[in-house]
Amino acid sequence: MHDQVEAGETGDDAARADPAGPGREEITAAAHRVAPYVRHTPVIALEPAWRGVPGSVVLKLELLQHTGSFKPRGALNRILDAAVPASGVIAASGGNHGLGVAYAARALGHRAEVFVPETTSRVKIDRLHELGADVVVTGTYYADALSASERRVEETGALVVHAYDQPDVVAGQGTVGRELDDDAPGLDTVVVAVGGGGLMAGITSWFAGSVHVVAVEPEGAPTLHHALAAGHPVDVDVAGLAADSLGARRIGSIAYAVARRHRVESVLVTDDAIASAQRALWTDLHVMAEPGGAAAVAALVAGVYVPAGGERVGVVVCGGNVDPATVTR
Amino acid sequence: MHDQVEAGETGDDAARADPAGPGREEITAAAHRVAPYVRHTPVIALEPAWRGVPGSVVLKLELLQHTGSFKPRGALNRILDAAVPASGVIAASGGNHGLGVAYAARALGHRAEVFVPETTSRVKIDRLHELGADVVVTGTYYADALSASERRVEETGALVVHAYDQPDVVAGQGTVGRELDDDAPGLDTVVVAVGGGGLMAGITSWFAGSVHVVAVEPEGAPTLHHALAAGHPVDVDVAGLAADSLGARRIGSIAYAVARRHRVESVLVTDDAIASAQRALWTDLHVMAEPGGAAAVAALVAGVYVPAGGERVGVVVCGGNVDPATVTR
Repeated sequence: MHDQVEAGETGDDAARADPAGPGREEITAAAHRVAPYVRHTPVIALEPAWRGVPGSVVLKLELLQHTGSFKPRGALNRILDAAVPASGVIAASGGNHGLGVAYAARALGHRAEVFVPETTSRVKIDRLHELGADVVVTGTYYADALSASERRVEETGALVVHAYDQPDVVAGQGTVGRELDDDAPGLDTVVVAVGGGGLMAGITSWFAGSVHVVAVEPEGAPTLHHALAAGHPVDVDVAGLAADSLGARRIGSIAYAVARRHRVESVLVTDDAIASAQRALWTDLHVMAEPGGAAAVAALVAGVYVPAGGERVGVVVCGGNVDPATVTR
Repeated sequence: MHDQVEAGETGDDAARADPAGPGREEITAAAHRVAPYVRHTPVIALEPAWRGVPGSVVLKLELLQHTGSFKPRGALNRILDAAVPASGVIAASGGNHGLGVAYAARALGHRAEVFVPETTSRVKIDRLHELGADVVVTGTYYADALSASERRVEETGALVVHAYDQPDVVAGQGTVGRELDDDAPGLDTVVVAVGGGGLMAGITSWFAGSVHVVAVEPEGAPTLHHALAAGHPVDVDVAGLAADSLGARRIGSIAYAVARRHRVESVLVTDDAIASAQRALWTDLHVMAEPGGAAAVAALVAGVYVPAGGERVGVVVCGGNVDPATVTR
């Protein structure tokens, strides 16, 4: 782990130094490290045959996490395991990752600079300000904000917190798997959404082959799906309902390696299936998930992944940053 | 318990037969009885000093229950512990109790007739229909619907499920306390909202003096507060934000007796405090509580009840049937 961290401090190249994914001991270390700053989110068991889904299903309600998604876990672990310069930490994201980094930096007393594109909503920028981040709005696309943040790092030397492709970030997200394993022991299968793949890689690394992992992507953002088909990560065009949270253009190198190594099953869901899952979660459980947060549930409700009768399935509801009006209308 | 049930079958007089509240054994029996049909709802620990609240606070997320409130527990226990005639079960309520009874009747294969006043929203009537209930819309006020339901019982002999003042209903609601005790052992204090007092009475009976119970009512619906001041249950005028769920006109006789017996502390919260608690739960936890569901949290956030530094506090978030737009706007 220490060697990986050293590599990580040089920036984006960190992942490429060892794309095999964290071991259970790194994830346990991460869990102890981040424990004072994250919520141990609860699980709830669904009744048999909920919405026609076979098997025995438990939801992990990670949308109850600080900032409304799992992102603080990885950001906290990255920052806590590194030497942070006076210039603080830096990230590019107008979405959940930006919030996670801002939250982590504030919790740990560091400065945070978050670069977002001009398309970022006022609400998200306000929330970043509330979390104490310095927000730089620049460029039309995420890629522009990312480039600007990279140039800024050269000036300031701030610690880069990548959205998914750093070993410490993946180990932090893996603490979701560790909690799920504690609270719902004996799972056969875990179903999880994939954007850049940090959460999937962390959870898969925790279980290390002892469960079957189903990785769910929207049809409009199939980064892992296309990478597995091509035999290596490839750029994809990104669109659709969940693009705000699952819209990475390319699967992370760590996530790709972990998915290959542990034979993760890749499935795709439609935007309609995602919207239906959001409505089902709200109507039946009063859980208000964002599209990316409902994608894993969508795979079950739409029958894209069908558990066997006695199969024990854990599903991660990973984010809730959504305007409720878009779900209830 | 059996004697109480016999009495209960004659209708509203049931409670008066034994207002001392259920024992732990009745609540345990209720828990086993209702287990196949209810969700064991999760708890989540809040971070220290959340919104300035001292002590160590755990929220029980009972709004994740079927129908969005705790009400199915009491209805199920009442119905499962009685002989149900072919005419089924009957209740008066356009709110959470009606939904709970309709859900319970459908789960158990009984007919349900639910009487609601003309002021009941289309959404709630639709939801009752979806749950398979026969809905009778009659009269301007809740009292009119109640009277009509009482006349109807004389014709049909259906089993009356009271909203709070029947021993089996109180024992069923007490299963919330039993789960909370399991999942957050060693509590010093439990904070819970009061309408007619069924939930408070059930939880207080489970803990039976081993925790301090704080009963929270809106200033606009102070049924327990006025009863304790008067020395007996009295009618109160009801108004305000949470009147839809906490707007009973008079505290239940069981609830009053239990509150006296176990020295429950009665506190009042303003509508502003309730609305603030709703916003805090949504902003910080992505929990969408209805006004009545947020009232207990309001008592803590507004400083109406202030825990000691090391005090371990359990708070029940008991309902989520709300238009999210009223919380997020």
